[in-house]
Amino acid sequence: MESNRIEAFSDGVLAIIITIMVLELKVPHGVDLEALRPIVPVFASYVLSFIYVGIYWNNHHHLFHSTKQVSAAILWANLHLLFWLSLFPFSAAWMGENHLAPTPTAAYGVVLLMAVIAYYFLQCAIIAHQGPNSLLASALGRDWKGKLSPIIYLAAILLAFVSPWISSGLYAFAALVWLIPDRRIERVLEKRDPGEA
Amino acid sequence: MESNRIEAFSDGVLAIIITIMVLELKVPHGVDLEALRPIVPVFASYVLSFIYVGIYWNNHHHLFHSTKQVSAAILWANLHLLFWLSLFPFSAAWMGENHLAPTPTAAYGVVLLMAVIAYYFLQCAIIAHQGPNSLLASALGRDWKGKLSPIIYLAAILLAFVSPWISSGLYAFAALVWLIPDRRIERVLEKRDPGEA
Amino acid sequence: MESNRIEAFSDGVLAIIITIMVLELKVPHGVDLEALRPIVPVFASYVLSFIYVGIYWNNHHHLFHSTKQVSAAILWANLHLLFWLSLFPFSAAWMGENHLAPTPTAAYGVVLLMAVIAYYFLQCAIIAHQGPNSLLASALGRDWKGKLSPIIYLAAILLAFVSPWISSGLYAFAALVWLIPDRRIERVLEKRDPGEA
Amino acid sequence: MESNRIEAFSDGVLAIIITIMVLELKVPHGVDLEALRPIVPVFASYVLSFIYVGIYWNNHHHLFHSTKQVSAAILWANLHLLFWLSLFPFSAAWMGENHLAPTPTAAYGVVLLMAVIAYYFLQCAIIAHQGPNSLLASALGRDWKGKLSPIIYLAAILLAFVSPWISSGLYAFAALVWLIPDRRIERVLEKRDPGEA
Repeated sequence: MESNRIEAFSDGVLAIIITIMVLELKVPHGVDLEALRPIVPVFASYVLSFIYVGIYWNNHHHLFHSTKQVSAAILWANLHLLFWLSLFPFSAAWMGENHLAPTPTAAYGVVLLMAVIAYYFLQCAIIAHQGPNSLLASALGRDWKGKLSPIIYLAAILLAFVSPWISSGLYAFAALVWLIPDRRIERVLEKRDPGEA
Repeated sequence: MESNRIEAFSDGVLAIIITIMVLELKVPHGVDLEALRPIVPVFASYVLSFIYVGIYWNNHHHLFHSTKQVSAAILWANLHLLFWLSLFPFSAAWMGENHLAPTPTAAYGVVLLMAVIAYYFLQCAIIAHQGPNSLLASALGRDWKGKLSPIIYLAAILLAFVSPWISSGLYAFAALVWLIPDRRIERVLEKRDPGEA
Repeated sequence: MESNRIEAFSDGVLAIIITIMVLELKVPHGVDLEALRPIVPVFASYVLSFIYVGIYWNNHHHLFHSTKQVSAAILWANLHLLFWLSLFPFSAAWMGENHLAPTPTAAYGVVLLMAVIAYYFLQCAIIAHQGPNSLLASALGRDWKGKLSPIIYLAAILLAFVSPWISSGLYAFAALVWLIPDRRIERVLEKRDPGEA
Repeated sequence: MESNRIEAFSDGVLAIIITIMVLELKVPHGVDLEALRPIVPVFASYVLSFIYVGIYWNNHHHLFHSTKQVSAAILWANLHLLFWLSLFPFSAAWMGENHLAPTPTAAYGVVLLMAVIAYYFLQCAIIAHQGPNSLLASALGRDWKGKLSPIIYLAAILLAFVSPWISSGLYAFAALVWLIPDRRIERVLEKRDPGEA
């Protein structure tokens, strides 16, 4: 089975997730700037979630760039990742509409945590499919980002009941860490086939 | 007519169906875990329907993998399948919001039944187009899964008026049967052209 | 400019149009079959509109099958067509929710009429781009379907104020006429290049 | 990294943006033409925004036509552009539902302004990636349209507090300027490789 259709389907789902989040930005009834104030936290959680979906799309892109063939395990690991990403609009809206209340803020972290775990499973499924000389395995190396993120999310989930502001700061910080694009895969691909990448 | 555009369109529709189901998860007004309780059944029916759409996408992928050319009959059989799949969000929401009331649970089964029949028609249209030496026909073989599912759904529809819990258990069971990926098509393709698949 | 990206974008828009129409099927509050009765007309107008979008996707597919290069005029004619098709969910819901009231039924016809005119403009733009030996022009021939549809829609719009049932019957009839796939283009393509189509 | 997947993802997002705007056209409760009157301004802002998204898709198409490889900077510049375009449905609805009240009309201009700036950043990222002999840089030339638009939007934002009608006239005028397709890129491509374009 080739990877192009799994990419197209994932692109479609990610494109829809990133766009329906904007539907949570309810059109305010007032006509002055004051009317926008209640939607500021919803807008902020939209921006954060947009960046997160962008990061996932970006990394997903890199992941499948090193994968030409997909197995059934990869396919389901990918759907599992998309499932958790599909909960971003819901949890972002719950957090945003309640102005960073503790439980919704922690719930947002749980969805982020499950998504990063699902991403890790997807990586494992691809590496297992590629066998011992896996291009992706050598590209990932120690994968400190992949190991750091769940710890940050876990801390943020617990801290949400102390101060949701710290949690949301941690979510933003974890996004910043991922924003730096994953050049490792590109670098390894370049080494192997300098003419292509 | 080539099959790539029918695949792209179906991918688009399936990606949207799988994603708009999440819109039925209405953001709760409360800010504690208690507030999530009313949406637990909606969430459960979302998970089940997500898996079903995933299964259909997966099998659809395999189906068109063995099909390079499409006829008008295949095109309309495909649209017919997409029509029934497009009713998943509606029937999942009706079942979920009413906490497995008998009629909505039976209605969910009717949509599942119609979808599996539509899938069967699509298979027939592809086999008819491929002619007597149809790759797909030999790949399907006895197709016990395709024959078992409608019977399970029919039983579940009737049992919904006895106990909706049995019905939803049957829906989950039928999903599990399909979750095991359809390796038959891949196996036959491998035999014919070991270098490709 | 190549036609593959205009096809991908149109596929995306059509996939979304066909799917968001189902959002108009509001989940009923009751839990028995009686609760479904108020949404029967909405469901009927959903089925009709699904078939219409399917027909447009099908014909769009054939149209661009004979077109490898696109001009700016084709691009905008295509967007113009997509604009009118994007009004299908709105007008189908207005007609369906008001149980075939005269004005909404006529409005549905106006959208159908504008869409068929937009499709005609798109055909003209492609023929103009292909020049005097246009493959599409010879494939279309007398194009009796393209000429019959606007007359049916015009009659249905006027008759909506006499009997909306006649109008909706005419809309269904016009859909049936188009359901028979446009084999003309395929036939001409086969003649020119028997190995390809 | 190749540009085809970034195009597919952008096509998906743009297709969804252009289509969900129509969801703001709430189905009226009345059944006569009078019932449509309140949605006339929403409809007008839908038409304007549809044209704008069409223009961006069109120009985006041209932009990536000259770009085969994408860098991380291009990828994020593209997501940044999509972010501002994703706010079109929200700001169009706010302006439309409030019958061109000053602040919503100015806010619409701010989104247009940010989008054109994001588009400019994307151009710069592509030119920087292509290096000193950038095909795109020579194709753009003086780029008077790209320089004129932000000035028009800025004027319209300020004038919204004098007369929102002047502002919306300016938005429509700026759209008309962009409607004339960007033939510069095609022309330069033709010169370089007359057989391709």
